[in-house]
Amino acid sequence: MVQITLIPPSELQRVRQATVDRFAKLALLADMCRANTLATVKRAGSGHLGSSFSSLDIVTLLYFSEMNVMDLGIDHPDRDIFFSSKGHDVPGLYSVLFALGIIPREQFLNLRRLGGTHGHPDVSIAGIEANSGSLGMGISKAKGMALAKRLLGRGGRVFVMTGDGELQEGQIYEALQSAVHQGINNVQVIVDHNKVQSDKPVSEISDLGDLEAKFRAFGWHVARCDGHDFRDLERVLAEFRTVTDKPKVLIADTIKGRGVSFMEHPFALKAGKGLYPWHSGAPDDQSFAAGYGEIIARIQNHLKDLGLAPLKLEEVPPEAKSASRVSSESVANAFGEALVSIAGQRPDLVVLDADLAADCRVRACENQYGDRFIENGIAEQDMVSMAGGLARQGLLPVVNTFGAFLAARANEQIYNNACEGSKIIYVCHYSGLIPAGPGASHQSIRDISLFGALPNFQVIQPGNAAETRMALEYGVNQAAENCVLRLIIGPSPRLISLPEDYRLTFGKGVPLTEGRDAVMFAYGPVMLHEALLASELLKEQGFGLRVVNMPWLNRVDDQWLAEVLEPCRAIFVLEDHAPVGGLGDHLLNHLVKQNLLADRSFEKFAVEGYPACGTPGQVLRFHRLDGESLAQRILQ
Amino acid sequence: MVQITLIPPSELQRVRQATVDRFAKLALLADMCRANTLATVKRAGSGHLGSSFSSLDIVTLLYFSEMNVMDLGIDHPDRDIFFSSKGHDVPGLYSVLFALGIIPREQFLNLRRLGGTHGHPDVSIAGIEANSGSLGMGISKAKGMALAKRLLGRGGRVFVMTGDGELQEGQIYEALQSAVHQGINNVQVIVDHNKVQSDKPVSEISDLGDLEAKFRAFGWHVARCDGHDFRDLERVLAEFRTVTDKPKVLIADTIKGRGVSFMEHPFALKAGKGLYPWHSGAPDDQSFAAGYGEIIARIQNHLKDLGLAPLKLEEVPPEAKSASRVSSESVANAFGEALVSIAGQRPDLVVLDADLAADCRVRACENQYGDRFIENGIAEQDMVSMAGGLARQGLLPVVNTFGAFLAARANEQIYNNACEGSKIIYVCHYSGLIPAGPGASHQSIRDISLFGALPNFQVIQPGNAAETRMALEYGVNQAAENCVLRLIIGPSPRLISLPEDYRLTFGKGVPLTEGRDAVMFAYGPVMLHEALLASELLKEQGFGLRVVNMPWLNRVDDQWLAEVLEPCRAIFVLEDHAPVGGLGDHLLNHLVKQNLLADRSFEKFAVEGYPACGTPGQVLRFHRLDGESLAQRILQ
Repeated sequence: MVQITLIPPSELQRVRQATVDRFAKLALLADMCRANTLATVKRAGSGHLGSSFSSLDIVTLLYFSEMNVMDLGIDHPDRDIFFSSKGHDVPGLYSVLFALGIIPREQFLNLRRLGGTHGHPDVSIAGIEANSGSLGMGISKAKGMALAKRLLGRGGRVFVMTGDGELQEGQIYEALQSAVHQGINNVQVIVDHNKVQSDKPVSEISDLGDLEAKFRAFGWHVARCDGHDFRDLERVLAEFRTVTDKPKVLIADTIKGRGVSFMEHPFALKAGKGLYPWHSGAPDDQSFAAGYGEIIARIQNHLKDLGLAPLKLEEVPPEAKSASRVSSESVANAFGEALVSIAGQRPDLVVLDADLAADCRVRACENQYGDRFIENGIAEQDMVSMAGGLARQGLLPVVNTFGAFLAARANEQIYNNACEGSKIIYVCHYSGLIPAGPGASHQSIRDISLFGALPNFQVIQPGNAAETRMALEYGVNQAAENCVLRLIIGPSPRLISLPEDYRLTFGKGVPLTEGRDAVMFAYGPVMLHEALLASELLKEQGFGLRVVNMPWLNRVDDQWLAEVLEPCRAIFVLEDHAPVGGLGDHLLNHLVKQNLLADRSFEKFAVEGYPACGTPGQVLRFHRLDGESLAQRILQ
Repeated sequence: MVQITLIPPSELQRVRQATVDRFAKLALLADMCRANTLATVKRAGSGHLGSSFSSLDIVTLLYFSEMNVMDLGIDHPDRDIFFSSKGHDVPGLYSVLFALGIIPREQFLNLRRLGGTHGHPDVSIAGIEANSGSLGMGISKAKGMALAKRLLGRGGRVFVMTGDGELQEGQIYEALQSAVHQGINNVQVIVDHNKVQSDKPVSEISDLGDLEAKFRAFGWHVARCDGHDFRDLERVLAEFRTVTDKPKVLIADTIKGRGVSFMEHPFALKAGKGLYPWHSGAPDDQSFAAGYGEIIARIQNHLKDLGLAPLKLEEVPPEAKSASRVSSESVANAFGEALVSIAGQRPDLVVLDADLAADCRVRACENQYGDRFIENGIAEQDMVSMAGGLARQGLLPVVNTFGAFLAARANEQIYNNACEGSKIIYVCHYSGLIPAGPGASHQSIRDISLFGALPNFQVIQPGNAAETRMALEYGVNQAAENCVLRLIIGPSPRLISLPEDYRLTFGKGVPLTEGRDAVMFAYGPVMLHEALLASELLKEQGFGLRVVNMPWLNRVDDQWLAEVLEPCRAIFVLEDHAPVGGLGDHLLNHLVKQNLLADRSFEKFAVEGYPACGTPGQVLRFHRLDGESLAQRILQ
């Protein structure tokens, strides 16, 4: 691991107090924040650099010059409010809040760690005004804050930043329209118009057209400027102070990855052959060293030019080794490969995506079957209802995005499709608690419950690559009802071995270990791994835990259930989900109906409360869902 | 009951085949459909006349002249497709499909009846292309149909009608944007721009601004014309055939209630003192007679002018008396009154609405506390996130709309707010199975499950007016967590009597009848009534059913639970909800944890499958949830 250094608060303080040109100082501070952002993302091993960098000049100007937060304090009722609706640019914001002394050093360093800062904004962190991470909600929320200020007679302006890809979300337009009608003029939207989404240009994913015309048509005051030009930004914000009869939007033209030459999108898109590589994830050691070196060199030169002493960096102690186990197995990859294969066999299959083609492993399908690949942009509701229209005409849509967004945001659209009796396959990617770095906006631990009350839905979560292929094949070729495939997004902690002759069979799971003392139902590679760990630990103590892989989360074969329990007096269900509405509740109903509980105990282990943010190990332990905790809980 | 007559298919056929001016014939047919629409809505006792009438000239032109459905048949793959995204105008569409012989007479007559037609479009009905009723989904769905036609090499155009209030829904803009980017040009949107929403002008609820500019800014081909002028409509549709490089939208200026002088909005809005009275619901006998007489007289004059024989009407046999019981008790009214009172005491309370102020009984609050009443228009996501912003600033938002729309459509926004730890009260109006006339888009039978996995939510459904006041008071003044109030929208079938000294107590319900043979937990006036009916029937047979009103749907006091069950060996839970994720699952978990099931049986009676459409009596019986069926099921 490369040595990581931090620009300490004292150095930031020194520059803030230096008597130099105001704009030069802002540029310096922005770069110092860039360096610290890069350091924390590298240390975290993940995070969103591209838009942290594109937005950082704006955020720097707001906090160091435009807003009254430094004067009034971050908790003052009359403070100006800033938050980012897209939220994934929060590592940049953290660096500014750290520079202002609002976020303490230990917390700042521990990006995406338990007790540190979250992968997306969370109000538990000082200076964070709103939770975000799921897109499109920010302007609505800013409206609420601005109206509250008016009702409560509080001073202060409300600034909210959006992405440009984010403008594909329909809620944006609800807010644009109601803001004008409601006369909520104390909202200043800043669009970080960096032109690139997850990995492709906005213009390729779902072009925004004439953005200024759109905002104007909705009755907003519109300005546009270079989002990296402090003078220009200041001029627009001064103009905004004079416009009191309309809400205001600044389209800030920015460069994704700004500040590190090879991360800037005009270069990086070419280098990535059309795919921008720096949206999320940490750079490797070499790229980090190059990028960090470039920023620090620029700062040093700048300091020198301004007659200021060179920067003193502080070495950051390396993080204690994480014990996360990772295998080469990936259910997500298996899904992507199987989808290409099955699309070849089924000309009626169409694949839909909401700007997560790489994460959802549907890029290969996009490349190979482009006519049947439908990119909807970040517009989940549109994607789901469009799938409904395709299905009504007899096609078989396979709808892809993260589980949190699909199950919750498009829930009514899913219901509407389902009422029509047509068949659709919904794939909830990034399901479950892990990875836990992105935080609660992304951790999908409610999706089973959100599909649960739909009568014609089967929810399936495969435990390994082979089962993933079977589940997709089942969903496409056999299932009469709608199917939900629930997939973890990361590599499996271990390869979950299934019997050689294993076939996915409706309503039936498969025991992975033998044991007569207790049975534990689990699903998905993450929790099966923890269950197996628990079983191994318990075995050492002479306790036999029968771990059962149960991929059917809301269907069970009663006879099989009776058999698989048979010798065990204690039943456990390990959920990669909240305690309500998951596999446990489904099994419980069947156990009671079949009178299988009479002389048995039943307990669910689930994600209690909101999901914690951190490394897999930290968070599984926090929720007492790691193998060791499970073993202890079972023995209790 | 006034005598109802129908224009029979033979008469419609006669006019269709008459050799008269084409446009005169269309006007005649449209009026004949208007008369039949009015007859069925009157017979049903409910339905949406205002927008059925504003859209009927357009729908008539499409089916009788523009589309190829009459030539190819309604099931031909190459057929033109029409459906209405708003859906509540479907009584008008049914009358056209009846005129075309697509919907049979018996079914047509039985609007909002089991086995008849649904209150909102449902594909189980011949000629209906898509389910709708929840707003904003239609353009997305039309896109899917149009793309499917392209992929499958099928001919035919796709027409989709939207409302104007509906344009407040964000999904509309997702679809407008993606349609252009995806090059789906075979979508022709027709906005039935009748200027009036539920009961107020669009311009008052959430003004649309320059609508043409909006559509143009999104890259659509835009036309505008008088939606009641067949020549003009035909001209625009001809123009649309020549525009092949863009999706097309026609803003059709229409008059809500068109065709019945006193239902037309310029007059009716004045008569209603700014509130349009004919959006939904059937006219009283006198208004029906006047309106129907006016249409028929116009038709007769028109026939005479054209040299055609006068119309022969067919008398419709009266409907068998419905046995639905209704009291003067209304939990919805109690909520509205209590909200005004509590808003007077709590200056931090703000009330949010999404164009259902009258239905949600928050109009009194709007009138009395206008500064703290926030109208968001039909934009549930915006409303919920705005509430989040208000709550972050320390205010207490009370968010109102129908349960189906609130819990499902804004689910991710609710989660986002909840993660911030602020407190909001969500009021799910029109919860449960009844009234069942509007159909599956409106019947909210999944909402408990949709809130269920949120850890900091208490879901409460009061059984009578007094308990409603207590529940609101509890939510506002006592609860530390978010609260969901679940309210039925109609009058209670009977007054549910609670003990004189009854106080709503956290996690505890209250027995309404004594009985030692079985206990039945139920909630809400509709199901409590059925449970009490069952108990009365069972009592005659010597079976003692203890009916327990359990207003806490996801919180229970374990000690109370043990006590209330004590003598009973059989436990039943009656859900006004789907079987998954309701009160039953919550109680089941506690029963098992407390070992209270050991020698007891447990059964849930719930809404299985999708909710049926019909009268309360029909639908309760269909789902075997009426008192009589319940009594039988209990004895089994």
